[in-house]
Amino acid sequence: MNILDTLDRAVHLHPDNVGVVDGDRRLPYAEVADRVHRLSGFLARRGITPGDRLSILDHNSLEFLETYYTAAGLGAVLNPLNVRLTPKDLAFILQDAGSRWLVVRDRFAPVVDAILEEKTPVEGLLWLGEAALPGCRLESIPLDAALAEGGTDFRPPPLGEEAVAHLYYTSGTSGLPKGVPLTHRNVCVHALAAVAEFHLTDADVWGHIAPMFHLADAWATFAVTWVGGRHVMVPRFEAGGVLEAVERHRITLSNLIPTMLNLMVRHPDVNRYDLGSLRVLLSGGAPIAPEVVRRVVETFGCDYIQTYGMTETSPYLTVSVLKAHLEDLDLETRLEYKAKTGRPFITVCLEVVDEAGRPVARDEKQVGEIRVRGETITAGYWNRPDETREAFEDGWLKTGDMAVVDAEGYITIVDRKKDVILSGGENVYSIEVENALYEHPGILEAAVFGVPDATWGEAVRAAVVPRPGVQISEAEILTFLKENLAGFKVPRAVDFLDALPRTGSGKIYKKALRDPFWG
Amino acid sequence: MNILDTLDRAVHLHPDNVGVVDGDRRLPYAEVADRVHRLSGFLARRGITPGDRLSILDHNSLEFLETYYTAAGLGAVLNPLNVRLTPKDLAFILQDAGSRWLVVRDRFAPVVDAILEEKTPVEGLLWLGEAALPGCRLESIPLDAALAEGGTDFRPPPLGEEAVAHLYYTSGTSGLPKGVPLTHRNVCVHALAAVAEFHLTDADVWGHIAPMFHLADAWATFAVTWVGGRHVMVPRFEAGGVLEAVERHRITLSNLIPTMLNLMVRHPDVNRYDLGSLRVLLSGGAPIAPEVVRRVVETFGCDYIQTYGMTETSPYLTVSVLKAHLEDLDLETRLEYKAKTGRPFITVCLEVVDEAGRPVARDEKQVGEIRVRGETITAGYWNRPDETREAFEDGWLKTGDMAVVDAEGYITIVDRKKDVILSGGENVYSIEVENALYEHPGILEAAVFGVPDATWGEAVRAAVVPRPGVQISEAEILTFLKENLAGFKVPRAVDFLDALPRTGSGKIYKKALRDPFWG
Repeated sequence: MNILDTLDRAVHLHPDNVGVVDGDRRLPYAEVADRVHRLSGFLARRGITPGDRLSILDHNSLEFLETYYTAAGLGAVLNPLNVRLTPKDLAFILQDAGSRWLVVRDRFAPVVDAILEEKTPVEGLLWLGEAALPGCRLESIPLDAALAEGGTDFRPPPLGEEAVAHLYYTSGTSGLPKGVPLTHRNVCVHALAAVAEFHLTDADVWGHIAPMFHLADAWATFAVTWVGGRHVMVPRFEAGGVLEAVERHRITLSNLIPTMLNLMVRHPDVNRYDLGSLRVLLSGGAPIAPEVVRRVVETFGCDYIQTYGMTETSPYLTVSVLKAHLEDLDLETRLEYKAKTGRPFITVCLEVVDEAGRPVARDEKQVGEIRVRGETITAGYWNRPDETREAFEDGWLKTGDMAVVDAEGYITIVDRKKDVILSGGENVYSIEVENALYEHPGILEAAVFGVPDATWGEAVRAAVVPRPGVQISEAEILTFLKENLAGFKVPRAVDFLDALPRTGSGKIYKKALRDPFWG
Repeated sequence: MNILDTLDRAVHLHPDNVGVVDGDRRLPYAEVADRVHRLSGFLARRGITPGDRLSILDHNSLEFLETYYTAAGLGAVLNPLNVRLTPKDLAFILQDAGSRWLVVRDRFAPVVDAILEEKTPVEGLLWLGEAALPGCRLESIPLDAALAEGGTDFRPPPLGEEAVAHLYYTSGTSGLPKGVPLTHRNVCVHALAAVAEFHLTDADVWGHIAPMFHLADAWATFAVTWVGGRHVMVPRFEAGGVLEAVERHRITLSNLIPTMLNLMVRHPDVNRYDLGSLRVLLSGGAPIAPEVVRRVVETFGCDYIQTYGMTETSPYLTVSVLKAHLEDLDLETRLEYKAKTGRPFITVCLEVVDEAGRPVARDEKQVGEIRVRGETITAGYWNRPDETREAFEDGWLKTGDMAVVDAEGYITIVDRKKDVILSGGENVYSIEVENALYEHPGILEAAVFGVPDATWGEAVRAAVVPRPGVQISEAEILTFLKENLAGFKVPRAVDFLDALPRTGSGKIYKKALRDPFWG
């Protein structure tokens, strides 16, 4: 299995289908493949050979999709960069990955300028749009010139399916970014499993709305191409713009983060758009309330599937697809199931186990850690043998996520393992306390963490960001919580902040809140 | 990927779903898995270890499905035997496969008795039903006793996915049966691809109607289990019985041979049954006329998909699933596409090439040989290095099937390569002439083949079986053909036979017709 096979199939069966829509550009698959082969030819002329690393810095675009396939054709490893990272972080990743060329959108010229002040192994810049940074010490060429120079005589080298195809960096929530290599095999099995789970066909139109540099969206590049569906590029999220794109391009599927869904559902003009093409909306990366699922299903008139995954796992581990007999239940109950983290994605073996490695009871009470194995899971981190050893045990990847399991086998994540607070012999799941805080109308953001306590071992503590213009006291919050939570779960203290600390990829960085207390 | 994973998933997610229905028996997946592990335990006690071969001789049954999984759990290779073969053929296969145990239905005791007159490596007989052949020199145990002895402590050994899982024998249409080994990988990728192509879910109920010892049906064992669907066992084909089974068990899908479909469509009581559960009927193994497809679609009110495959390819290579834009065409045209051999099955790379290996034009005129590669294709024949070398070239399996390709990429098989007749510099495709013969109302069966001819190199010759009670002359047939075929395609002579020679698996054996003329 090779990622390029998925494009070859689209070209073979659907050469004239419009494969990619990006603004005014509508390219049939045959033309996409032609450009991919030219670009591969160009980079091969620059000495890129199988196993070499390439990086890309761009918003969602035709060229982003093409670069995924260009790297696959070369047998090179594509390293997609998070556009929200600082130049320093980006330079670290380029160095760690040993990246030889950087494909970059011209608007990011200032970022590249700053990156190049650091030490990097990058030899050349391939500009999407206009070439920038005149006088830069690296070779610098715009895409059009590269396509012309690339010619039509490139032939992909033979490549084993265990060859690394992608190198994503996870910020995780602690320490330096670490690289997650995924093989052609990992990516292709995931793509085929996604076709199977979501019943993808050539009638589907995927909206690339969440960033393509992240697997939450990137997997669809390969799955949708494989079945000859269409890709619609949405470079930046803006609720009205996405609704318009759905109407104009007849988008049938997309995967969003819950915040995006929320903004779309609440958009004042949402009912003015014809959204009848939507078949399924997926979301992941954060829990979703059944009430939000109801609004999604009712507003968009389509199915909803909650997803859970990790970069290490290509990414999906669970999906909240309903079993046939659950489809017969009343709407309320169906929404509850749809809002759960889900049941295992096909090809994934998943267990929720106690500390002795025994599966927890299916009672939605006993909490255990999720561990997984399967064809879509990375073999280990890039040049990080220690972190690899720590993450894997007996062939299982320990996810670090704590969950309960219901009688049907659907899981619900209750916390990250390292965020669980042990207070007076009781486990307090920070997410439960945060959810209770979010119920308060005056709270915009909340994070709950453990601090040392002489009596209880750890004590629960909260950091909150009030909504703009709202005055709210610690006492008021604590009183509110006491009505909704068992006493031992209520924080001992609340800190008021202007904003919560976040990682480069936007996740709340609890370590920064916790560390000052632990000295 | 391991075949046992597909059952593990069903047990994990759907433990209480009725997984298998066989007559009055309705077993949930958890119980099937329990029996499978007990049976594995029994055979492990008898010294069966990974790589050992087991054979099974049975009609479709619960135990057949269980034996597939038992072998997978042991890491053993299952060799399913064709119940229509002679004892001598069966003994040859047991010997060639080196089979250590034979799982066999009690009704086949006389066959086993005859087999044991030949030399075989079989050490034990595991009887489905009552133990038979008292005093037989081999260990002989009925299933119930084996389940009891097997116990519950068996643990599947670790196994690489390149381990051979199945060994099917193909009669082909010439020479001795040859073994086709398929790995866990081959079988699992095919199962996942089938889930993707046919949108299988746990709401599906598969009718095992075609024999499970053949891949045309066997693949569904793994694909349907993987999604937690239900298996309904139909031990023997009888049109009325199948229609009743569809109604009673709410069968949604099955794969039949066209003859079976034809008998079902023409059954006098077909309209008395409630067949509303049917979602898709597949057929393969022989061409089908658009007119038959129309009757299937109209009579059963379900979709129809033509399939083409080989034992060597797990089996599907093409399916006549319509592209989205073809679904908009008028019914006539849709039926024509559905009756074609089809477009490549997902994960299969398929080309139709001329003798220089160049793809033929997509004009439905230029004929070439189908060659394929992909994850579902055997690595080569069992202990047959010469036949393996002959079948593969540059990583492609040469199918020996000749086909044309249309502008949409759908292929239509025109003949087996070795059945093409070269007459006066023109290729005559035997299937085309046979189809013309079948148009004659007095002809029940027909086979067309080439014989030596001093003038033309080869001359076209036909063998026909008239319908019972019909008188028909050679001159009448030739006159009829001349109205429908170009002159060079019309046979020079017609032989009248009572029956056509057939191979053990029921295919018309043209070699037996051809050989006497070639001396």
